[in-house]
Amino acid sequence: MSDRPSRPTLAVIAAEAGVSPATVSKVINGRTDVAPGTRERVEALLRTHNYPGPGGTRRARRSGLIDLVLAGLDSPWAMEILRGVETECAQHGIGAVVSQVRADDARPPSWQNLPALHHSDGVILVTSRMTSRQRRQLERAGVALVLIDPVNLPDTDIASVGATNWAGGMAATEHLLDLGHRRIAVIGGPADMLCTQARVDGYRTVLERAGIEVDRELIRYGDFRHEGGFNRARELLALPAGRRPTAIFAGSDQQAMGAYEAARQAGLRIPEDLSVVGFDDLPMCEWLSPPLTTVRQPLEEMGRIAARTLRQILDGQPLLTPRIELSTELRVRHSTAPPRPEET
Amino acid sequence: MSDRPSRPTLAVIAAEAGVSPATVSKVINGRTDVAPGTRERVEALLRTHNYPGPGGTRRARRSGLIDLVLAGLDSPWAMEILRGVETECAQHGIGAVVSQVRADDARPPSWQNLPALHHSDGVILVTSRMTSRQRRQLERAGVALVLIDPVNLPDTDIASVGATNWAGGMAATEHLLDLGHRRIAVIGGPADMLCTQARVDGYRTVLERAGIEVDRELIRYGDFRHEGGFNRARELLALPAGRRPTAIFAGSDQQAMGAYEAARQAGLRIPEDLSVVGFDDLPMCEWLSPPLTTVRQPLEEMGRIAARTLRQILDGQPLLTPRIELSTELRVRHSTAPPRPEET
Repeated sequence: MSDRPSRPTLAVIAAEAGVSPATVSKVINGRTDVAPGTRERVEALLRTHNYPGPGGTRRARRSGLIDLVLAGLDSPWAMEILRGVETECAQHGIGAVVSQVRADDARPPSWQNLPALHHSDGVILVTSRMTSRQRRQLERAGVALVLIDPVNLPDTDIASVGATNWAGGMAATEHLLDLGHRRIAVIGGPADMLCTQARVDGYRTVLERAGIEVDRELIRYGDFRHEGGFNRARELLALPAGRRPTAIFAGSDQQAMGAYEAARQAGLRIPEDLSVVGFDDLPMCEWLSPPLTTVRQPLEEMGRIAARTLRQILDGQPLLTPRIELSTELRVRHSTAPPRPEET
Repeated sequence: MSDRPSRPTLAVIAAEAGVSPATVSKVINGRTDVAPGTRERVEALLRTHNYPGPGGTRRARRSGLIDLVLAGLDSPWAMEILRGVETECAQHGIGAVVSQVRADDARPPSWQNLPALHHSDGVILVTSRMTSRQRRQLERAGVALVLIDPVNLPDTDIASVGATNWAGGMAATEHLLDLGHRRIAVIGGPADMLCTQARVDGYRTVLERAGIEVDRELIRYGDFRHEGGFNRARELLALPAGRRPTAIFAGSDQQAMGAYEAARQAGLRIPEDLSVVGFDDLPMCEWLSPPLTTVRQPLEEMGRIAARTLRQILDGQPLLTPRIELSTELRVRHSTAPPRPEET
């Protein structure tokens, strides 16, 4: 940050305190699993080196701004998160500076440099990958960090907020099973994303417990967008009669809309000929024809909790847990029905 | 603003300069229609009184932040505007603090107090009403202001960005007329909004020029949301056979989605039994079943231009025109077709 003195790295602080860099990182991130004596020693060193930290200089230097950094500003999903963050921030007189991730070497500067630009107190990073280099950069700048739905496994030091994706995958599949479906397809998001894997695992578990063999042909992956849902659904609906699914559990509401269009082009009606379940419960689910049965992710609440967690870290309150998962919930509307008798 | 000295009102400055308060306001807002000598006199006084103004103290005090204030954060429309503002800001190292309008007396503080909270340089206000008191408050604080799609008539001093709503209303109606429709209904947004009136006037003009009597029964108003479109479309589709419209021009894409659902519930297929045209061209238009024919508003571009205009004002560059209207464009997809022969 332009007007702040340069500071020693965490490794130097750690060496001085006689602890590991991971412990210094825990103190900075408000973790409770650090012995009180160690915490005090590290905090004192952080203060000596003019290093922001919980209860240290960070609080005194507050700018009243945080950065909300999203992987993209092109999905209705992002708007839900933003609304939650904004609501929490507005109640505490905090300004939320919104931006989207740009590639690491890009001009304009990449996201991890943003806090330096306007001296923000912390960052909420949504659905993004973070390299360890980026993380060290933020820590050196003394910027507090909360993740929403991290793509890769969150380092356990960093606070993160998500939803119960596995339980959501189970709920969607159970609903379709209860209606009488047996050939249920799932379209996941990108296969390497944690949330995708959790949902597909929930789907698999329900089928296995019901004694239904999991047909790998019915498990597909695509991006979370409309196109991913459309392409995968078109492939699924082009399978020969006996192998074609009677229901599709899509990885996102946008994918579900793609499945709607694939069904329309195949001359299939929803829910008479094909049941579709989405994931997210975006406002548009109620506006679809027919309104979409979906697994609700409390996106707005996730945004609120992330902003609240960031405030806790800034206030130097130790977090009870670095990871919060909010529960998902099935919302049954009109896109699901029993399969046609001849297909069961 | 907390750390800035209190300043005389514009009226006091105006009296000192021997001009009207409106002239002072014009100088502050970067208008070109002020005589050079007058401009210099007013700018000198603004500087004397530590008053930010184009080319004056404002530039030196830049925080690198602007406020983007939206009427609501619950529409995909808002995301489009935000993306444009963010893109422009990111290219110039400016942070965009995003918030939504809250009622005047509410805690958290209402929008016109936001710039004081984090010392932002300017405000982009989207689709909102502004009282003259709010405007004076911003001017006293030396905050630059650009409006996007102002609800009430923009005071000509204030820079604003919009779209060619009247031409868009004409294009939608001409398209339906060309397909052979004669009973064309329009669902506007709220009747008191300027953009609604411009679109409905465009519709009316095309019908009148084609020698078709405007049937007031076919002109309805509702909010811009799904519900407004659904309720008005349901009323229209419930009219007796000869009086029922064969096409609906909706005031927004969300309204058009409401019309889709009203058609589905009435057992009508789109476009075979009913043609629907939207307004906005949100990304979701392509995801609908069938994809929606709509009038494209360049929302992202409107956001970019608003942010660019704000930078011009902050840089002290006089604006060539206080009002910029970007052109709308019809996007024909699959929700419009000729009416059934028996209905023409």
